[in-house]
Amino acid sequence: CCHDPPVLTDTATVQTVLDVCGVFVFALSGALVAVRAGLDLLGLLVLAWVAGLGGGIVRDLFLGITPPVAVSDWRLLAAAVLAALLVFLLHGTWQRAADDAVGGRRRLVSRAVRLLDAAGLALFAVSGALVALANDAGPLAATLIGGITAVGGGLLRDLLAGRVPEVLQRELYALPALAGAALVVLLDRLGVLSTVTVWAAVLLVFAIRVLAVALDLNAPRALRSRDR
Amino acid sequence: CCHDPPVLTDTATVQTVLDVCGVFVFALSGALVAVRAGLDLLGLLVLAWVAGLGGGIVRDLFLGITPPVAVSDWRLLAAAVLAALLVFLLHGTWQRAADDAVGGRRRLVSRAVRLLDAAGLALFAVSGALVALANDAGPLAATLIGGITAVGGGLLRDLLAGRVPEVLQRELYALPALAGAALVVLLDRLGVLSTVTVWAAVLLVFAIRVLAVALDLNAPRALRSRDR
Amino acid sequence: CCHDPPVLTDTATVQTVLDVCGVFVFALSGALVAVRAGLDLLGLLVLAWVAGLGGGIVRDLFLGITPPVAVSDWRLLAAAVLAALLVFLLHGTWQRAADDAVGGRRRLVSRAVRLLDAAGLALFAVSGALVALANDAGPLAATLIGGITAVGGGLLRDLLAGRVPEVLQRELYALPALAGAALVVLLDRLGVLSTVTVWAAVLLVFAIRVLAVALDLNAPRALRSRDR
Repeated sequence: CCHDPPVLTDTATVQTVLDVCGVFVFALSGALVAVRAGLDLLGLLVLAWVAGLGGGIVRDLFLGITPPVAVSDWRLLAAAVLAALLVFLLHGTWQRAADDAVGGRRRLVSRAVRLLDAAGLALFAVSGALVALANDAGPLAATLIGGITAVGGGLLRDLLAGRVPEVLQRELYALPALAGAALVVLLDRLGVLSTVTVWAAVLLVFAIRVLAVALDLNAPRALRSRDR
Repeated sequence: CCHDPPVLTDTATVQTVLDVCGVFVFALSGALVAVRAGLDLLGLLVLAWVAGLGGGIVRDLFLGITPPVAVSDWRLLAAAVLAALLVFLLHGTWQRAADDAVGGRRRLVSRAVRLLDAAGLALFAVSGALVALANDAGPLAATLIGGITAVGGGLLRDLLAGRVPEVLQRELYALPALAGAALVVLLDRLGVLSTVTVWAAVLLVFAIRVLAVALDLNAPRALRSRDR
Repeated sequence: CCHDPPVLTDTATVQTVLDVCGVFVFALSGALVAVRAGLDLLGLLVLAWVAGLGGGIVRDLFLGITPPVAVSDWRLLAAAVLAALLVFLLHGTWQRAADDAVGGRRRLVSRAVRLLDAAGLALFAVSGALVALANDAGPLAATLIGGITAVGGGLLRDLLAGRVPEVLQRELYALPALAGAALVVLLDRLGVLSTVTVWAAVLLVFAIRVLAVALDLNAPRALRSRDR
């Protein structure tokens, strides 16, 4: 039942583990956005599914992999559902903790989510590029598809929840993803794609993204138009 | 010119009829949303087309059916256009009737739309799962694709009209669709897929959805966060 | 690296030139929308990419062309990036000019953008229909895919920026695109598809659209519902 194309025989298992983790992490973010928007349990499940699996669906459509893994691999679905249920059950507790701690513990939760989100971004950027290369995409296509896989889920999540997507809004978000995907393509070109280098790419993207959040680094902004 | 994959030789005609009805019904809802948002005739046509055919387009993309039936089968297009024109021509009349009846007749119209919408949901959930099975999707994929086919049009309609999609918002909407698609997969597994059982599945989804609306049943909701 | 299917041997180069121009023009519009929404440089790049290449991506997905040209042809990417950088660098200048001229020069810029947008619409409608025909789409599918290719980028741009898509909102926008695509299909049927007739179709769509803007022609609107 697993449709993941075998990329590196020795990393196929690792990649599946990372994919499931990435889905789980992004699904958590989708469920949290749903709770904050006052949606019910099904809204939670839908937003968790979209956020966790949306990027992979776009990737698979771009690569002609039908049906997308997101609807055929039960492990990915289970990860998304688990994340939604966890948020549903635990949100009240988090809320109370936040009320007690006057922002202290809430900031902790919010920071944890951002770390997990950075991990998901890193995992999906790398795995997106790997899947694209395994499906005969060129270097440019593999880089862009890696970036889209990493960014897509959060973007669809924000669209459905009626928010301007965060990827467009404030922080260095797409750039680390594109850099990670480009690195995978480079490693492939150099013939040094291995379990170790793949993991190194994941860690690099993760580190850049965490640094960007920690230092509140943003890309330069054009003068805002006053005529609207 | 009809690209519907033949599922059951004896129900191919029935399925086409139901598909056209489903498109018509969802297109009506799209056109009504467009009128209420103050859009012009082309906006009506676009929203009617998206609402009526959006779910089928996603289904076809997920299954690798290109081009999607929604752009190649003129009967589906005609159903959507007819629905848009009907709403365009009759909306003034409905409006006056509503003004006269102080809500009475308007509620009647609104209820009729919901009934038709439930019928569309049921038809698309079942036909989505059937098409997926006929294109060699596995049980999980067929269930999810059935649900997505049923829910997709309304979701795209609400996105385009700038509303938080109703499927996320208030009522048991996705669940009956998923249940209907799962039932079709089960019938297929048991080898008892026939005209009669397909129709029974459609009726079951319709009944569940109508009941959910009538009793105002909603899925449980997490505590709303007060920190936003 | 160019995945454009060869339609007419003698117009393949012309078509590529036009495609690049269309991407550039739509990307300009996406970047301008991003600046006005206060987005940073990456937001500009993403919105420029989506607006410039979104229509082509949908076209390629509808036709089963994977990966979409938008992620595999560097020239299209370069056109979008160039447009975003131009807007980023020049926006301050335009802004000052607008402030000085009390609306005069700004209106000039805005008019230029609309002219370019009309050109993009015309180019994409015609090239969308040509690509669809070259990929064995039927007449109806080729017409609709041409229209969707022309309209899709702007629609995705507005969705991402949180605006109700302009195509739904005020003006004759989709109709000239559909007419141009239908004309291409007709020319193909009549066996008179050539460089000259293709260009004539582009010019016709452009002229209709410019006229619609100049005369502020809108499609008829249904009575607005007062019950919202």
